[in-house]
Amino acid sequence: MDRVVLGIDVGGTKMTAALATQSGKIVKLLRVHTKREEGAEGGFKAICEMVQELLNEARSQGLTVVRIGVGFGGPVDFGRGTVYLSHHVHGWENFPLKEALEKRFAVTTSVDNDANAGTLGEWMFGAGKGIDDLLYVNIGTGIGGGIISGGKLVRGWKNLAGEIGHMTVKPDGPVCTCGRKGCLEALASGDAIGREGTERLGRPVKSEEVFQLAEQGNEVAKQILSEAVEALAFAIGAAANLFNPKRVILGGGVAEAPEHLLIEPLRARLPRYTLPQAAEGLEVVRAQLGYDAGIMGAIALAITSIGD
Amino acid sequence: MDRVVLGIDVGGTKMTAALATQSGKIVKLLRVHTKREEGAEGGFKAICEMVQELLNEARSQGLTVVRIGVGFGGPVDFGRGTVYLSHHVHGWENFPLKEALEKRFAVTTSVDNDANAGTLGEWMFGAGKGIDDLLYVNIGTGIGGGIISGGKLVRGWKNLAGEIGHMTVKPDGPVCTCGRKGCLEALASGDAIGREGTERLGRPVKSEEVFQLAEQGNEVAKQILSEAVEALAFAIGAAANLFNPKRVILGGGVAEAPEHLLIEPLRARLPRYTLPQAAEGLEVVRAQLGYDAGIMGAIALAITSIGD
Repeated sequence: MDRVVLGIDVGGTKMTAALATQSGKIVKLLRVHTKREEGAEGGFKAICEMVQELLNEARSQGLTVVRIGVGFGGPVDFGRGTVYLSHHVHGWENFPLKEALEKRFAVTTSVDNDANAGTLGEWMFGAGKGIDDLLYVNIGTGIGGGIISGGKLVRGWKNLAGEIGHMTVKPDGPVCTCGRKGCLEALASGDAIGREGTERLGRPVKSEEVFQLAEQGNEVAKQILSEAVEALAFAIGAAANLFNPKRVILGGGVAEAPEHLLIEPLRARLPRYTLPQAAEGLEVVRAQLGYDAGIMGAIALAITSIGD
Repeated sequence: MDRVVLGIDVGGTKMTAALATQSGKIVKLLRVHTKREEGAEGGFKAICEMVQELLNEARSQGLTVVRIGVGFGGPVDFGRGTVYLSHHVHGWENFPLKEALEKRFAVTTSVDNDANAGTLGEWMFGAGKGIDDLLYVNIGTGIGGGIISGGKLVRGWKNLAGEIGHMTVKPDGPVCTCGRKGCLEALASGDAIGREGTERLGRPVKSEEVFQLAEQGNEVAKQILSEAVEALAFAIGAAANLFNPKRVILGGGVAEAPEHLLIEPLRARLPRYTLPQAAEGLEVVRAQLGYDAGIMGAIALAITSIGD
């Protein structure tokens, strides 16, 4: 056990870093909160302090860190290891995160967005173990995703693949955060479910309450969820026709809803939007990593990058 | 030039086979027509006769055939090399084509569906040369497709990937050949354009005539094409968000329409359905192999399979 990796999960204001073995066992984990107003500079400083502490720890245990993996909460140019931008914290635009970390710590570093890292994490350590063709959909405030095809992460030309949240589902639907209309994210994310609840119930509610009301038999809430499920079935069915995955993994806060309110009706509606041959045997399951998805994703990114 | 491959394109009633170098230069090509009523048995016999003739030719020229590639007009289990079924000719169900050819000719054989083979062909020899992330869409009687991601063909769990023709675009749209409603194929294929023309013009027309009428300024025909283009933009935009291709290649008879009636309006409508970052720099071009797409695809399949 003397070669280890170092994973870093960079959120808007929460940073997690960990040393882990090449089979994903965590040796030591650190968590810090940063201030949004400190921008990328403050964030980078916090990252460096954690990395230094973990490298010291590794040395003291006789371990060699062979790779650093960074899961970043925003789009990343994977090839160059440069952040495109952060939606939440200023100063990250074009930040050369890979280069800066390699220069400082002399450890080969891979940087990817957190959706790709999360997909790798579920694939290596969670609900996707052993499955070479899978679709990961993270339903939280927004909707992100990732695709493993033939045992490899689908990255695309500019590392922008997996954006199932911005697939158009209803061309005349509500306006999305991206500025276009009727994206999956505008119809089935936590924010979208809360927005519909607030509108149709006539008082401010969040998605959690919509699920609670549906559980209690509230017809308005049930209708809202049934529309969200229909939008998810539409988009996941489209992806299934394109990639023919064996398994769909649902992560994020919304996916923690009771199975009979989300996953079961989704399974029932998928064949409407999927070729029978591709729908046959297609599994829909809940993600397994939960709160640890971010850091386990960064660790999986580091491990899968060894040898690249 | 002493190691060559052998490609076979198996259509409903038309079979093409060719010897080619590993850079895709055709050494000798054979074409035969078979009768539908002779079924898979007659088809297999015709295939074997062509293979034997080409193997004899190779021997006489001092060439060694290192691989056979078969592009089949219907779904195929790529892993086992078994045909799932043919929509046009009886008797192909579960036909072990790879095994039967290998047993007879002792040459390692790969069998895939013609959409995947066509994708590989355009990638190696046509409009996709040098592009590691591309989407191929064949618009003919129906709509098929294939995806190259990170320099590899996306096959999926059961080799059913690339079925963009059966992506739902309009849930309340016309019934598709697959039995579901509003698939891209039911809205934008040659058959769909002909069907709409026939209905709205009040007399039987084919898609070619709809394009001619649109070219002459007929408003009904222009409207029909504009709806087909919108459906194509919807589906291709969804695919672009999912796997971030650099280039979209349109093949098949319908794609041979004048650029300003199909490809130009499609380029203009794509940003409506694609994330700005993924739409930026995305190219939409016509396929280059035309009539030779089938046989060049089978040759590309053979070449890319060497070493597997």
